[in-house]
Amino acid sequence: MSAPLTPSQLRARVRSGEHTGNTSGYCEGFVQANVAILPKDWAAEFLQFCQLNPKPCPIVGMAAQPGDTNIEGIGPDFDIRTDVPSYRLWKNGELTGEVNDISDIWTEDLVTFLIGCSFSFEEALLADGLEIRNLSEGRNVPMYNTNLACRPAGRFHGNMVVSMRPFKPVDAIRMIQICSRFPSVHGAPVHFGDPAAIGIADINQVDYGDSVTINDGEYPVFTACGVTPQAAIMAAKPPFCITHSPGCMVVTDLPNSRLAIL
Amino acid sequence: MSAPLTPSQLRARVRSGEHTGNTSGYCEGFVQANVAILPKDWAAEFLQFCQLNPKPCPIVGMAAQPGDTNIEGIGPDFDIRTDVPSYRLWKNGELTGEVNDISDIWTEDLVTFLIGCSFSFEEALLADGLEIRNLSEGRNVPMYNTNLACRPAGRFHGNMVVSMRPFKPVDAIRMIQICSRFPSVHGAPVHFGDPAAIGIADINQVDYGDSVTINDGEYPVFTACGVTPQAAIMAAKPPFCITHSPGCMVVTDLPNSRLAIL
Repeated sequence: MSAPLTPSQLRARVRSGEHTGNTSGYCEGFVQANVAILPKDWAAEFLQFCQLNPKPCPIVGMAAQPGDTNIEGIGPDFDIRTDVPSYRLWKNGELTGEVNDISDIWTEDLVTFLIGCSFSFEEALLADGLEIRNLSEGRNVPMYNTNLACRPAGRFHGNMVVSMRPFKPVDAIRMIQICSRFPSVHGAPVHFGDPAAIGIADINQVDYGDSVTINDGEYPVFTACGVTPQAAIMAAKPPFCITHSPGCMVVTDLPNSRLAIL
Repeated sequence: MSAPLTPSQLRARVRSGEHTGNTSGYCEGFVQANVAILPKDWAAEFLQFCQLNPKPCPIVGMAAQPGDTNIEGIGPDFDIRTDVPSYRLWKNGELTGEVNDISDIWTEDLVTFLIGCSFSFEEALLADGLEIRNLSEGRNVPMYNTNLACRPAGRFHGNMVVSMRPFKPVDAIRMIQICSRFPSVHGAPVHFGDPAAIGIADINQVDYGDSVTINDGEYPVFTACGVTPQAAIMAAKPPFCITHSPGCMVVTDLPNSRLAIL
């Protein structure tokens, strides 16, 4: 068995076109991030939206200047134009294409945001011996639209999207403790128990991802989700923007443990 | 309005017989403790029981030697023989009397234990803006026997006793975070939701204290309770022991904030 890839090695493979798929399971121990790339005249409002809604929109990296292709701390070789396995292109809130490289469409007008993702805290939960149902069932995490309003900022607004993981109460309490240590990857859950209390009509009808089994004695535990900022962008309909394709994240040099506040 | 009493001033009033009632609401900001006084040949096993069951039996002070009447850190003037407003005397597990001073029955054979109490974390919850139902309804906290077995130590054994406070999920999550900072006053809850899952047949039938209202959308949240070690002592039936009377605690010089690990 060969040694696992370092983040820099994986990024090199992505850059060369050798790796074009999802990044789940790669580079254990390192932060993976959601991507949002917006025109400069939308960036300030988006930054404010993230600042006002840190649980669903935790910023783990942001380009220092419009046009910058590297982000301090993500990796010396990091280039946002080539290092995401798959990009989605959007015009006026509509998906217009999916590509593996954005070098030819990059402009000095674009501002890159990297937003925390649940992979970081899931790793900490697994290390503590907790079962994560979507992983043990080999599915995507179930995600739902809610009636929990985000605080609006300029043209960005919308409700929070949440992910759900079922736990027995004793494990949910431990999960809350562990996730509280990771505020920059969504932090503590926002709700547990009755789905209707946050506007979810049917726990078996997901809005994104897959549904998972909830056993007797377990409660659904709901965590703010990084799909929230994407949903807000789609609703704001900027003339042009770029995101990662689902599951195809930026793999960074940041150790997950560095996101733990304690 | 006169200045609130310091712990030392309250202890002086208790010592002089001026204050003989409960200590709830006195000396805000300072740790109050449960009392257990056992003969020397029972003390080592009781200490082990507390060590094995730190959530229900968190030791905040212990006499350095049998017969010691002061405990390091509790207060320079502290005297266990006179500074508890009301004591309960027990023989072979049976209550035999209630007194305000144990000076005349004190022996060099007795070992004092002070055990953390929920007042400390309740203060932190109130300061954070959470409602504590038993306080807002002017009742004692509801407490229940459970089927959660303590780890036995010598002659000490039994199931955990828990206190219950109802919260909406978002407040329960915050409560779990705050209580996690206070491991020496029972720490994070041990359960929430279905009472039957921990052996409580009817949430409206308390085993100690009073029942409280649980509103729609709220879940009962269960915390390990300092009644647990008392129940274990009663079950072990030492030939003689002394406890505080319910609500009549030792008021210490320890700031509650010093019990917070973070």
